[in-house]
Amino acid sequence: MRHPTGRHFLQIPGPTNVPDRVLRAIDNPTIDHRGAGFAELGKSCLEGMKAVFRTGNPVMIFPSSGTGAWEAALVNTLSPGDRVLAFETGQFATLWAKMAADLGLRVDFVPGDWRRGVDPAEAAAKLSADRNHEIKAVLVVHNETSTGIRSDVAAVRRALDNAEHPGLLLVDTISSLAAMDYRHDEWGVDVSVGGSQKGLMLPPGLSFNAVSSKAIAASKDSKLPKSYWRWEEMLANNARGFFPYTPATNLLYGLREALKMLQEEGLENVFRRHDRLAEATRRAVRAWNLEIWAANPAEYSSSDTAVLLPDGCSESALRAVVLERFNMSLGAGLGKTAGKVFRIGHLGDFNDLMLAGTLAGVEMGLGLAGIPHRKGGIAAALDYLIGQESETA
Amino acid sequence: MRHPTGRHFLQIPGPTNVPDRVLRAIDNPTIDHRGAGFAELGKSCLEGMKAVFRTGNPVMIFPSSGTGAWEAALVNTLSPGDRVLAFETGQFATLWAKMAADLGLRVDFVPGDWRRGVDPAEAAAKLSADRNHEIKAVLVVHNETSTGIRSDVAAVRRALDNAEHPGLLLVDTISSLAAMDYRHDEWGVDVSVGGSQKGLMLPPGLSFNAVSSKAIAASKDSKLPKSYWRWEEMLANNARGFFPYTPATNLLYGLREALKMLQEEGLENVFRRHDRLAEATRRAVRAWNLEIWAANPAEYSSSDTAVLLPDGCSESALRAVVLERFNMSLGAGLGKTAGKVFRIGHLGDFNDLMLAGTLAGVEMGLGLAGIPHRKGGIAAALDYLIGQESETA
Repeated sequence: MRHPTGRHFLQIPGPTNVPDRVLRAIDNPTIDHRGAGFAELGKSCLEGMKAVFRTGNPVMIFPSSGTGAWEAALVNTLSPGDRVLAFETGQFATLWAKMAADLGLRVDFVPGDWRRGVDPAEAAAKLSADRNHEIKAVLVVHNETSTGIRSDVAAVRRALDNAEHPGLLLVDTISSLAAMDYRHDEWGVDVSVGGSQKGLMLPPGLSFNAVSSKAIAASKDSKLPKSYWRWEEMLANNARGFFPYTPATNLLYGLREALKMLQEEGLENVFRRHDRLAEATRRAVRAWNLEIWAANPAEYSSSDTAVLLPDGCSESALRAVVLERFNMSLGAGLGKTAGKVFRIGHLGDFNDLMLAGTLAGVEMGLGLAGIPHRKGGIAAALDYLIGQESETA
Repeated sequence: MRHPTGRHFLQIPGPTNVPDRVLRAIDNPTIDHRGAGFAELGKSCLEGMKAVFRTGNPVMIFPSSGTGAWEAALVNTLSPGDRVLAFETGQFATLWAKMAADLGLRVDFVPGDWRRGVDPAEAAAKLSADRNHEIKAVLVVHNETSTGIRSDVAAVRRALDNAEHPGLLLVDTISSLAAMDYRHDEWGVDVSVGGSQKGLMLPPGLSFNAVSSKAIAASKDSKLPKSYWRWEEMLANNARGFFPYTPATNLLYGLREALKMLQEEGLENVFRRHDRLAEATRRAVRAWNLEIWAANPAEYSSSDTAVLLPDGCSESALRAVVLERFNMSLGAGLGKTAGKVFRIGHLGDFNDLMLAGTLAGVEMGLGLAGIPHRKGGIAAALDYLIGQESETA
């Protein structure tokens, strides 16, 4: 296979394009994970992650995929047979619920059509009806990567509070963290689950649990078997900048650098950048006369946009031609959207001209794949981007 | 803190010195983990690891520390309340047994003084006495990193066979894999547990399970709750070069390069190199008039050497002065050996002159820390190294 020319456009909704600064940081020699130099690294990562999650409580870092941090959130707070409430908002909500069942929990899985986020009224009804407080935790995916749909975490918190329900609120922020506004403490989240390969601009291999005091208290009574994921030893070691077992040192080098970059830009600016690039993407989709998969504009994701193709068109053919001709990876449809939806990732280390290239690749790909569409998506996006710039100038 | 001059000597028994070739490979941009380019990477890593474990069966790669692969070995093959037989050969054998207990297994933990490996006769006695075959698995740490002691895995296999005992043989080869002779298939191991940061010359963050058909069969009946570590989805995805959740792509780049390097050198040569550098190290220790912690020469490790200090001497003072003055990290005593033993790691990307520097650092450190010893350790090691070279020339 000939090496494709130019930079690859990695426009799946994560892993995202890793900045050179982060790659170069990861490239440093591994050090003794029990030495003083490591403790400095550990402390700066653990402390820096608190700002990203917007929490004053501890954040834990696991050497694992985000999937591992899902498991950590469950096994540290729950006991066999506990009931959890989850919502079918997409592929990842479905997988997390399946994991809960696999681990011996009873899952009350509220069905959905994958085109909307969690309905806070439905959550409220479920919680109010649970008078004996059998539901021990509510699972919410903040940004459903598979559908480009954001759920209103604060509203689910209010539903819990209004029902005076003691259930824990566990939230997957894997594809929203450091890309979309997320507030662990303010929203009263008990465990937030994060991953390294999305807004944090790192390769995959690190995952996160941000916790609340209530979650820590629940972990004392939790009976699900655990060892690797157990918070107790993790927190005890973290206090001194260390880890209970060998941490993924080189990825932590990368995390330290990524945290520096996020701090330099400012989290609020990071969110605004993503909001703006997402809106430009949606304007392109509408100009193409294609349908944004998300049904409710209030729930649009700023991390990725899922696009519905006309009946009979193949998303895999589109992605194949875009990869072959233009050296760009787009996200596939997953689960219930397989075959009919493709996804544009616009999160992480991403800017106007990268988006222009991305949309150009999609527009040309639509033509090559014979998918009925209007041209003019890029133009619509650029008009918006340039208009925005003058407005803010 | 002033940046210490020159290269750091990372002479803990892992993480080991990562070759520049591997660091540069890790430094490449992250790619789509569902694309064809990734499948090639995945396949070459999965296939290459078979040769390292010396197995024709599948090897699985987890994004985690080695500790995670311990957990994977247990939760995939065993059920709550199952009995396992383990041997107190050192810190890591103790931690693995503790993990088994934490996960709900009943552990028959044969006590030991940490100065010897598994006694095959003791294993045989335990297994013969277990007439009802209540013991479902035997846990052995091939190379106890905490003590520099090798256990005879093949002899434990024979003990199982002679007793006609159906228990599974689970072996931790984290600090021996790709450093010391290890034979998954020939020794009849059912699950071998490996990690990336030792003989494989990678940063930490990848772990491995090599399996047998019997282990796969056992996994069908295993009842311990599992999700992240479950083999079933892992094997199904691996068949096409993929993973059930996002893999640690950049560390896999490193693994592909490390496998290339091991192949270039040849595994037999890798083992011989380690054997030789280990013997040179022991000669230095004897010349210093210090005691090798391992009681039985047949069990000497080729990965690391633990050295006992005279009564009243502090290993932490020695390690501190060596780090401060000579920019070298040595291994601490762990658990029962804390305070009295230090460890020299001589595995991974390591050669004669690196060993000379390492031993020079230890010899000068012994002097600076006021630890009674004779000089001449380096000289003894070099005499051996140069003699060996002429012998093989």
